Amino acid sequence: MPTIPASAQASSPSAPPSAASALLPRTLASDLSSYVDAPPTRVRLSGWIHRRRRLSGLAFVVIRDRSGTAQVVVKDPAVLAQVDALTEETTVDVVGMTSSNPQAPGGVEIIDPALSALTAAAATSPIELWRPNHQAGLKTMLDHAPVTWRHPRQQATWQLAAASMHGFRRTLESQSFTEIQTPKLVESATESGSNVFGVDYFGQRAYLAQSPQFYKQMGVGIFERVFEVGPVFRAEPHDTVRHLAEYVSLDVEMGFIADHRDVAATLRDVLAGMVESIHERTSSAVELLGVDVPTVPAELPVIHFREALEIAGAPSDEPDLAPAHERALGAWAREQHGSDFLLVEGYPLAKRAFYTHPQPDDPRWSNSFDLLFRGLELVTGGQRLHRYDDYVAALTQRGEALAPYESYLQTFRHGMPPHGGFAIGLERWTARLVAAENIREVTLFPRDLHRLAP
Amino acid sequence: MPTIPASAQASSPSAPPSAASALLPRTLASDLSSYVDAPPTRVRLSGWIHRRRRLSGLAFVVIRDRSGTAQVVVKDPAVLAQVDALTEETTVDVVGMTSSNPQAPGGVEIIDPALSALTAAAATSPIELWRPNHQAGLKTMLDHAPVTWRHPRQQATWQLAAASMHGFRRTLESQSFTEIQTPKLVESATESGSNVFGVDYFGQRAYLAQSPQFYKQMGVGIFERVFEVGPVFRAEPHDTVRHLAEYVSLDVEMGFIADHRDVAATLRDVLAGMVESIHERTSSAVELLGVDVPTVPAELPVIHFREALEIAGAPSDEPDLAPAHERALGAWAREQHGSDFLLVEGYPLAKRAFYTHPQPDDPRWSNSFDLLFRGLELVTGGQRLHRYDDYVAALTQRGEALAPYESYLQTFRHGMPPHGGFAIGLERWTARLVAAENIREVTLFPRDLHRLAP
Repeated sequence: MPTIPASAQASSPSAPPSAASALLPRTLASDLSSYVDAPPTRVRLSGWIHRRRRLSGLAFVVIRDRSGTAQVVVKDPAVLAQVDALTEETTVDVVGMTSSNPQAPGGVEIIDPALSALTAAAATSPIELWRPNHQAGLKTMLDHAPVTWRHPRQQATWQLAAASMHGFRRTLESQSFTEIQTPKLVESATESGSNVFGVDYFGQRAYLAQSPQFYKQMGVGIFERVFEVGPVFRAEPHDTVRHLAEYVSLDVEMGFIADHRDVAATLRDVLAGMVESIHERTSSAVELLGVDVPTVPAELPVIHFREALEIAGAPSDEPDLAPAHERALGAWAREQHGSDFLLVEGYPLAKRAFYTHPQPDDPRWSNSFDLLFRGLELVTGGQRLHRYDDYVAALTQRGEALAPYESYLQTFRHGMPPHGGFAIGLERWTARLVAAENIREVTLFPRDLHRLAP
Repeated sequence: MPTIPASAQASSPSAPPSAASALLPRTLASDLSSYVDAPPTRVRLSGWIHRRRRLSGLAFVVIRDRSGTAQVVVKDPAVLAQVDALTEETTVDVVGMTSSNPQAPGGVEIIDPALSALTAAAATSPIELWRPNHQAGLKTMLDHAPVTWRHPRQQATWQLAAASMHGFRRTLESQSFTEIQTPKLVESATESGSNVFGVDYFGQRAYLAQSPQFYKQMGVGIFERVFEVGPVFRAEPHDTVRHLAEYVSLDVEMGFIADHRDVAATLRDVLAGMVESIHERTSSAVELLGVDVPTVPAELPVIHFREALEIAGAPSDEPDLAPAHERALGAWAREQHGSDFLLVEGYPLAKRAFYTHPQPDDPRWSNSFDLLFRGLELVTGGQRLHRYDDYVAALTQRGEALAPYESYLQTFRHGMPPHGGFAIGLERWTARLVAAENIREVTLFPRDLHRLAP
């Protein structure tokens, strides 16, 4: 009676292989350094041919796996002929002897190798993945994303995103937030005023959710504190470097707050947790890309929207901050507070979504905020209305019918606490971290007006 | 210059409140037990009125918050009048004195309270949330999901799901898997043969992804080992207790495997991690619901599809396992191996998706598997083809055109390792755990043929 044992350790994931018991356990490239002072040892590497350097009677082959790269030195004429035939990106198994070489990655290279290709020789890559800095244009990168993302700098970029999601969740779970998963197919297109995608839903009209806003508020009624990491959909009809038709939203909502400042305090913790996770888990990505990882101050500097206009030199009746204003405020925050972050609170109520809570002492303003990161808006959040009558009044004042909001509004007839939340766009965050000019550079498979594949 | 400090500790989340500095810090219901041996102390609770029990000149009010429940004893006539007016589910602040009482939750109750309602009295709940077991039918539960999910048993059910997601990710991250987020808007409807939802995408036809299958395979080309937790969409035109139009898929894909058994070993680890997380994080939910949490054996019992037919007493030319067969196999696994889990491998190749890898020694069968959990299919997985020519042959043999698969197939021309993966349906897993008759009982806001709201 055969059984499936627990998998082997991460450093030798397929060892001992169940079907090919003659194979050595796999060694990862990053583990080779442990052989520096060991006697020559027979090991097996598996990975992609990252680069071949052919000299007379000699070849250096760099093997890339998920942990990094390793150098293989080939002298045997039969193996050299193989190397000549096997192109970059072909997947291979390499069995050979370890040999210390201070020039090799990790201080150890593989000599006297036997090579087995796992597929036919790979087709020519759209970009030369072995070059430290590729020169490809954005269109080439995106058209061939499954291959271009293999570039170590691209991989490193996504590792920052993955670590950020980890830090986001870890911070919130430690503060007794519950993870929720809410539907992306919704019946009403009323949520955020953005353009929506229509879906043919069993002959009925449905829409793709522009945000989990309504559902995370319902989640507060259930769990008090909730978060979600998931896709949101915006039918943005314009082509900009900052907008995507589908992106990953990191959403938070929490109950029993005093006001929006409690929400902002949680936002501070979440950002600190994301940064901590980046340092812990992606130090080599940070180094490779030269990322200027921000320090999240123990206390976020905060100014009112009115003051923000003044500082930015904008007229006092401006209803919103223009990009130039945000840049000026970013410079001001850096100079005055040594901070990459600046919280602007009190945006004009009329400019925010209908569920926004007014500023209690002056309802022209609102208990909402934007967080600027290096002079660009990264997060929108605030306190929401929590009384049924306030929702009815807010919608009525905006001339909106109540019917499309029916199932959402019912929630507020059954007891809701003062609450609020925020959303961070994952791709926008990563783009800022690596100072990408276009958000598509940091999105695995971006969707926009012109792109639906790969 | 005001600043936003880091949030206070989880046990007093809004303390000190920035806008209402006169308020005491909040105490959670579960923290009251720390006052058992303390002198009477003034505390503030915030939560929902879970239940009122009115006696002559006396009322017991149970307050529910995210941590549990607390008992408040009211004797003051003015406060009694408030209690009479405030219905169940109204949100309140309660300030009062702690008092030991072995009968109260946590051994401490609140006496001499002052009560402030945070909203108008709540409307009557569609179900009596304070009853340990509600008798409501499924339709009532689903129509009023934002309220019915507040029932402690419902909350506990979702806590199992949330803990499972945590355990899934933690296990994979510890084995150097990278989390990915892949697009749900796709250009082609070819992926799994399921029915798909069409989307109007800027005047073009797009579809909602039935699974991240193609993208997670591309992810293997980039990161070797990837996982994703996200929504998948199936336009299931039939109404069953097992199917949803949108559900949460826990997806894994990994490269450089020997065969599907390496994938199954990772599946074992993932299940063990999910169970571990349930024990660690949701012990009170497990107790409340009386969940029979499975033990994941160190080695999963595995049998070939041929043997499975024999054991189930099915004809040897059956192409698939019927539900009755799966139940028989579940009973057999329990009896013969003391296991709630049984891995069936080698399903007929013709019955699996085109990307399935054949069994090397007999291509009538495949290197794929289903995992049965207590006699029901929970997971499908296996080894995939990894050579471009094999994909062309497999599609051609099935009479399918290559063009719709173009961007996917390109991946295999650029070097891919032997790889495989699996997907676990989150709701299906939770339904099995709590022995729910209908998968909708464990889904926050289910979507099906007849339901698009709330």
